[in-house]
Amino acid sequence: MVSRVVIDAISKFTTCDAADALQKLKVPHGGFLSGLTMYSPARQSGPTKIVGPAYTVRYVRKNYENAPKPEGHYIDSIPAGSVVFISSPPRLVNAVYGGLMSTRAQASGAVGTIVDGRVRDLQEHRDLEYPVFAREVGTSAPAEVVRVSEVNSPVRLQSDEQDAVINPGDILIADLNGVVCIPQDLAPRIVELMASQADADEKVAADIKAGKTFTDASKEHRSKVKQP
Amino acid sequence: MVSRVVIDAISKFTTCDAADALQKLKVPHGGFLSGLTMYSPARQSGPTKIVGPAYTVRYVRKNYENAPKPEGHYIDSIPAGSVVFISSPPRLVNAVYGGLMSTRAQASGAVGTIVDGRVRDLQEHRDLEYPVFAREVGTSAPAEVVRVSEVNSPVRLQSDEQDAVINPGDILIADLNGVVCIPQDLAPRIVELMASQADADEKVAADIKAGKTFTDASKEHRSKVKQP
Amino acid sequence: MVSRVVIDAISKFTTCDAADALQKLKVPHGGFLSGLTMYSPARQSGPTKIVGPAYTVRYVRKNYENAPKPEGHYIDSIPAGSVVFISSPPRLVNAVYGGLMSTRAQASGAVGTIVDGRVRDLQEHRDLEYPVFAREVGTSAPAEVVRVSEVNSPVRLQSDEQDAVINPGDILIADLNGVVCIPQDLAPRIVELMASQADADEKVAADIKAGKTFTDASKEHRSKVKQP
Repeated sequence: MVSRVVIDAISKFTTCDAADALQKLKVPHGGFLSGLTMYSPARQSGPTKIVGPAYTVRYVRKNYENAPKPEGHYIDSIPAGSVVFISSPPRLVNAVYGGLMSTRAQASGAVGTIVDGRVRDLQEHRDLEYPVFAREVGTSAPAEVVRVSEVNSPVRLQSDEQDAVINPGDILIADLNGVVCIPQDLAPRIVELMASQADADEKVAADIKAGKTFTDASKEHRSKVKQP
Repeated sequence: MVSRVVIDAISKFTTCDAADALQKLKVPHGGFLSGLTMYSPARQSGPTKIVGPAYTVRYVRKNYENAPKPEGHYIDSIPAGSVVFISSPPRLVNAVYGGLMSTRAQASGAVGTIVDGRVRDLQEHRDLEYPVFAREVGTSAPAEVVRVSEVNSPVRLQSDEQDAVINPGDILIADLNGVVCIPQDLAPRIVELMASQADADEKVAADIKAGKTFTDASKEHRSKVKQP
Repeated sequence: MVSRVVIDAISKFTTCDAADALQKLKVPHGGFLSGLTMYSPARQSGPTKIVGPAYTVRYVRKNYENAPKPEGHYIDSIPAGSVVFISSPPRLVNAVYGGLMSTRAQASGAVGTIVDGRVRDLQEHRDLEYPVFAREVGTSAPAEVVRVSEVNSPVRLQSDEQDAVINPGDILIADLNGVVCIPQDLAPRIVELMASQADADEKVAADIKAGKTFTDASKEHRSKVKQP
């Protein structure tokens, strides 16, 4: 399990900083999970950032009769500090997450929810000021077509462009730019890498504003960036 | 035709409430029309909600020479209180709705427009504070590639995920979460169902905030929800 | 090269006005480039409009070994007044444009950047108040999967719906409604056409607000619109 100290250290950086460090550690696409963007507390605006270990929930179509069935409702056993990650079957018209779920998640101390699918009750999440990232909006409850199959098992991202898996306990970081999944064992290693790169980039930006070319500024500061 | 009293009663609820009631009445996906979101008066934010009977307009590609041709311009015969629903052929690059159309629709007393396709002149709709929902934005007038074929005939939603038809006179409700189509004959039946469910969900939310599990709160309040 | 006078004249109009004029000159879809929308300084809101000659940059997948390789970094040779147009291979998970690039583009006097692909560091572009249009957001640097191949060569729009090419020196105009590409040789010709159409449409809007039908108002004012 990733320590609080490491999670706090990661929280000082952006999703882009995390992706830069993960690329240095050879994680494909720097851990980016495409297509999931901020819907609450605002649509892709403001300073909201969430960081925490993934608590995963997998929905399956109701006709998958042999898929496992969990005991109890997933929403009642979220550990404090978690990021809830809801996985929906691809191209589902129904929403898999709504206002009462955020109400309960927030009461449990969750830091936010990421929905690989549709979210409904948008105003309720916003009224709670609870962060929700999603693929799309919707209006219709899920029970008609899907049911929860597994909690805290690995889930695969819905995507035609990339092949990515979110494991329970992986650190999810999400902000304006989208969502990055940090594999649990790499979390402690990225902190130093992020600090060194962000520091160099800040110096490059200052030099450019002062009139330098990107090539020159980059050559000077990026050569000193820490590598794994 | 759905009465003013029923429309006013429906207006007190959200698209999600309407979808919940329609699911109880076995309408697939609770009447949700995927992919149509708020563009005016703001992009997916604020309290805007529109409710009214659908006035439908169907565009076809210009080479559909045998498709019917209406008399007069559709925009000049919108009944007051209507929601204009514009259907565009799928994957059209051109916009099928612009600022002058909202100017005229508003003058006719329409309550909003839903465009299953691209909308242009975004600032003009916003300046009018006229609600417009759409699939996407665009810049280019339609006459180059499409023409109106039918007014107030049933139109099929552009969608790869779902099969849905909007009939003239169906009640369209749209807000932050998207658009729901309420079949005309079911409109009077959903009011009681919505009230009962919304009331239960409010009690569940209050209980959760007070520390109860979702399972317990739900068991207590949802068992009393009115069923058709 | 299009003169400053023409660019200033075009800047008084919207992307929709430009598309209307280009349709009169038989440019398919009025020059609209689908799928590229405003991300900075705000997401599809506010009065931001950019107009200027295209400075094009083409990224290719790294395994395209025979594709040309430019000398120097494209970001260090942007002419003042340009609109930077970055072309990414389709369906790329990685972003091809970030905060340092906008910092340098702004220092060069570029008026904005259009990314046919993903953009990252969203808050940085917004903090610079530098206009950025894009297809989507992302978090991950490009070097892992793509490299720049050509600068100031024609680039093809990523699109399943349309076939469009952006040539260096074409005038790009972008606002709330998206992006329009004005072929260089047509730029001087559209100014008069835009003025005449916009003037007529204003009169139509005024007449409609005063109670006229669209048909009547349109017949009166649009018959006088200048044609090529």
